[in-house]
Amino acid sequence: MLRPLGNRVVIEKKEHEQTTKSGIVLTDSAKEKSNEGVIVAVGPGRTLDNGERLKPELNVGDRVVFQQYAGTEVKRDDTEYLVLTEDEVLAVIED
Amino acid sequence: MLRPLGNRVVIEKKEHEQTTKSGIVLTDSAKEKSNEGVIVAVGPGRTLDNGERLKPELNVGDRVVFQQYAGTEVKRDDTEYLVLTEDEVLAVIED
Amino acid sequence: MLRPLGNRVVIEKKEHEQTTKSGIVLTDSAKEKSNEGVIVAVGPGRTLDNGERLKPELNVGDRVVFQQYAGTEVKRDDTEYLVLTEDEVLAVIED
Amino acid sequence: MLRPLGNRVVIEKKEHEQTTKSGIVLTDSAKEKSNEGVIVAVGPGRTLDNGERLKPELNVGDRVVFQQYAGTEVKRDDTEYLVLTEDEVLAVIED
Amino acid sequence: MLRPLGNRVVIEKKEHEQTTKSGIVLTDSAKEKSNEGVIVAVGPGRTLDNGERLKPELNVGDRVVFQQYAGTEVKRDDTEYLVLTEDEVLAVIED
Amino acid sequence: MLRPLGNRVVIEKKEHEQTTKSGIVLTDSAKEKSNEGVIVAVGPGRTLDNGERLKPELNVGDRVVFQQYAGTEVKRDDTEYLVLTEDEVLAVIED
Amino acid sequence: MLRPLGNRVVIEKKEHEQTTKSGIVLTDSAKEKSNEGVIVAVGPGRTLDNGERLKPELNVGDRVVFQQYAGTEVKRDDTEYLVLTEDEVLAVIED
Repeated sequence: MLRPLGNRVVIEKKEHEQTTKSGIVLTDSAKEKSNEGVIVAVGPGRTLDNGERLKPELNVGDRVVFQQYAGTEVKRDDTEYLVLTEDEVLAVIED
Repeated sequence: MLRPLGNRVVIEKKEHEQTTKSGIVLTDSAKEKSNEGVIVAVGPGRTLDNGERLKPELNVGDRVVFQQYAGTEVKRDDTEYLVLTEDEVLAVIED
Repeated sequence: MLRPLGNRVVIEKKEHEQTTKSGIVLTDSAKEKSNEGVIVAVGPGRTLDNGERLKPELNVGDRVVFQQYAGTEVKRDDTEYLVLTEDEVLAVIED
Repeated sequence: MLRPLGNRVVIEKKEHEQTTKSGIVLTDSAKEKSNEGVIVAVGPGRTLDNGERLKPELNVGDRVVFQQYAGTEVKRDDTEYLVLTEDEVLAVIED
Repeated sequence: MLRPLGNRVVIEKKEHEQTTKSGIVLTDSAKEKSNEGVIVAVGPGRTLDNGERLKPELNVGDRVVFQQYAGTEVKRDDTEYLVLTEDEVLAVIED
Repeated sequence: MLRPLGNRVVIEKKEHEQTTKSGIVLTDSAKEKSNEGVIVAVGPGRTLDNGERLKPELNVGDRVVFQQYAGTEVKRDDTEYLVLTEDEVLAVIED
Repeated sequence: MLRPLGNRVVIEKKEHEQTTKSGIVLTDSAKEKSNEGVIVAVGPGRTLDNGERLKPELNVGDRVVFQQYAGTEVKRDDTEYLVLTEDEVLAVIED
């Protein structure tokens, strides 16, 4: 497993099955690139100028939307993860 | 629903019906892109260097004008939302 | 009306009638673009790093000179306003 | 008159008459652009992070050298002024 | 040995043997460039604005993933090391 | 004379006579541009965020090496001066 | 001698004699440019925002590796020195 540093988080991307309104499942080339995923690891948080750690807002298991093209992709055991900073996560998806 | 992080807000864009002075409703290609919308969610606010949260100026329901081309578009349940930071919101529209 | 956020102000631009020295009123294409206007709304001011608000220097009614090409134009009820930060206002015009 | 904001100053540019060593007064196209002038107005000064104003180093009447191409030109009553920040003024000329 | 300064670390890169799913060991030109390695030295840490040292998160022996193309390569005794700042290390690999 | 502002200094450039090893004095086009000079004036120093002045490290009379292409050239009474910030001075030359 | 200012250091570059594995000494054009050297002078250190000096990590005599292409070359008495900031020094070489 990956243990992120500082204010970084590790995300497992969700490729949501994409179907047109008439129910046709889209092939890969017709899909929009997903910017959704699930948080699988959270770093200890950003260090403030006074030396204290800022507790992260995100938790493992959160479904999130993140900035497109942000972060670095890391492959571990055939799974593609994305490591990005908490600042690059836009919002938590709630149901 | 989307729960924004930090000093981010979620906006539902308002496409105001555009009519010329003589009353003709404009087609899509002739419309100016709207930079107006309604705040539908507000994050917990920016964290200051001393670790305290800065209370956001914006509230859910505020009609706002924002910087053109700012933020990231996120589609949820056929609605197009815009996630941007409070700094990218210019003004609240009051009547 | 527009209620600006943070250290932003709303300006109503003044297009001063431009006449040549011999008294000819210039047509639009020959005019210099004005960077003068009147403050019509002032935000609550910039937030300092210690969380306090910095009181704005500008007041509603101030005639000002601002940086050319700064800010965002916003149209409300057929009037063209300009929303910019207090930093982009250069000076107050006094008589 | 112009009352500058923050750490800005208003300068009236001095075009020094330029003569060659043999005494010929140069025409406009042969002159070097002057970066000298006289301070005609001084703003209240820059605001520090703790909210205090920093007293300006410059005074009305100071003859100064400033960075070429800095600031914004503002015309009032047929006089061309230059509004720039105190940081863009290099030195005071003393005799 | 290299003793890194400030918040820098020294990494010995791991070129993981790359085999296709059918077991063929890949030649050099077909390999992806590794961004994995082992920490072999850790600097004293970043100095905060109040003059205190921030204790590094990384330890000698940590297996890490780092940003591709970050840092400077340094060759010592036929071994290729990479010197980068702790900010450029993304995550620790744990088993 | 020039009295520099803030953390600026005024330098009188030294064009060291350049001779080849065999004693030939080089013409202008063959000379390297000098980045050496003598400090002729020192400003009051940079203002820290707490409002205090930081005493300059340089003194009038110091022979210094500075960053090539830094600063602004100012001509006074046929002498070419260079106004630059203390940060752009690299080192004092001692004998 | 050169006395560096602030957080700068003066380095005398080491061109290590480069021999191929079979013992052939390489000519100039075949050499890699060295980014190793010895510290010959250390400045008083960086000034923190509270006005205190940060004691440098480096000492005269340290053998160091620095960022390629960083700093300014200064020639004194036929020796080529390099003046760079402590931040541009990557690591101390220890035996």
